[in-house]
Amino acid sequence: VSIATQDMSRLEPRELRRLARSGEWRRPTTGLCRGAAQANLVILPEADAFDFFLFAQRNPRACPLIEVTEPGMTEPEGVAAGADLRTDLPEYRVYEYGEEAAAVPDISGHWRDDLVSFLIGCSFTAEAALLDAGVRLRHLELDRAVPMYLTARACRPAGRFHGPLVVSMRPILQTQLVHAVQVTSRFALAHGGPVHVGDPDALGIADLGSPDWGEPVPVEAGYVPVFWACGVTPQAVARQSRPELMITHSPGHMFVTDVPDRELAVF
Amino acid sequence: VSIATQDMSRLEPRELRRLARSGEWRRPTTGLCRGAAQANLVILPEADAFDFFLFAQRNPRACPLIEVTEPGMTEPEGVAAGADLRTDLPEYRVYEYGEEAAAVPDISGHWRDDLVSFLIGCSFTAEAALLDAGVRLRHLELDRAVPMYLTARACRPAGRFHGPLVVSMRPILQTQLVHAVQVTSRFALAHGGPVHVGDPDALGIADLGSPDWGEPVPVEAGYVPVFWACGVTPQAVARQSRPELMITHSPGHMFVTDVPDRELAVF
Repeated sequence: VSIATQDMSRLEPRELRRLARSGEWRRPTTGLCRGAAQANLVILPEADAFDFFLFAQRNPRACPLIEVTEPGMTEPEGVAAGADLRTDLPEYRVYEYGEEAAAVPDISGHWRDDLVSFLIGCSFTAEAALLDAGVRLRHLELDRAVPMYLTARACRPAGRFHGPLVVSMRPILQTQLVHAVQVTSRFALAHGGPVHVGDPDALGIADLGSPDWGEPVPVEAGYVPVFWACGVTPQAVARQSRPELMITHSPGHMFVTDVPDRELAVF
Repeated sequence: VSIATQDMSRLEPRELRRLARSGEWRRPTTGLCRGAAQANLVILPEADAFDFFLFAQRNPRACPLIEVTEPGMTEPEGVAAGADLRTDLPEYRVYEYGEEAAAVPDISGHWRDDLVSFLIGCSFTAEAALLDAGVRLRHLELDRAVPMYLTARACRPAGRFHGPLVVSMRPILQTQLVHAVQVTSRFALAHGGPVHVGDPDALGIADLGSPDWGEPVPVEAGYVPVFWACGVTPQAVARQSRPELMITHSPGHMFVTDVPDRELAVF
């Protein structure tokens, strides 16, 4: 079956991972493998891993951990048996001392036996729950990447890691606001409830029209801007904290796990 | 004001910590400082800390982390500014290679610059919520320590750490069972909802009358035994995994934080 004729939304996660591994799929994972939780990836040398573990524990909205590997392990066995974190994402970013050094489809050449991988819950899980609940998501209706912003709010630091909270913004119908808060709050492992509703200034965001990542989405009459903590936060933290090496997914090019979205809810 | 004439349930947490520090309070902390979350303590050398961090992340029902310190730090600033983890618990247990070496009121003499402290949510928080909800707790009515049991269920291992899940058991009125599940499920950072309801055999517990820790509490007519993951799990894991050094609280002699119980609920 060729990719062109498949319904990618119904693909099995292990099949998508195989296509990424073979180089047949190098595009974003948005909308793929419906029902399976996707994850942000952060890889660090063991010498920095304890500090980042602390950082994630202290900033659970931005960095909800769904799996952490032992040093050198390439298979995240708790969430995707048989997967290989060096090859199974469509694209990676390699940061050296906080500077982006490369965007690559495979990190086998960068791999070291002291690398620890952190998998962090992704807002796609929360978006699926919002859609199931009938909440309108304008960026999907407009076929745009969700807009993301650096904020003036500092994360709680941990060891060498410090930096600003990054948020995503979704315009939500005022009549659906309560429901949007309720639905996402259940998904503690997919960033949980919003960090703020209504006022970009309160987060130090000067212009919603100029996101730092993604594409702008207008907040039309009857809608209110709602802000959630974002899994891009570690990449902003890398720029400030400048670890020797940090490898992440490319934005939108996530790791697709075997874990059902529903398991990222608290109960 | 002497301890004898104070209402200890209304004591401020920092005052209780001062009394523990000075040696004036060496007894269990049950019922003290109502409304403030108490915590289990696990201290390990940095060389074992990453593995234990992984263990806690993989076993969040047994080991819900509410604070982790940087190596050598004695103040858990996120949950109790000004506190000192070497002195502010009423009693500690020191384990060497998995064997209990000492029960002491102060660990200043054991302190090293490479020690990392893990504070783990405690069932007292969930019990307070159950009492607030009108759920009867027989062990409190009988003035007994809650019974705890080793189970046949293995924790998910991490690095050098492996061992059995330990559970606490509370007889719950069948008419209050649904409410007991609902109330405790909200407190994900205080062990969350039960791991099992009804059948001790399902957990490999042969005799409810012979707990491994605490005191037996009879399951009377109209009640059903309900089992929650327990913060004593790390002590059972220490016996099997035999780390060079592990320091914990003594059972019932918890660290009292400044964090309100309600903040250990998910939302």
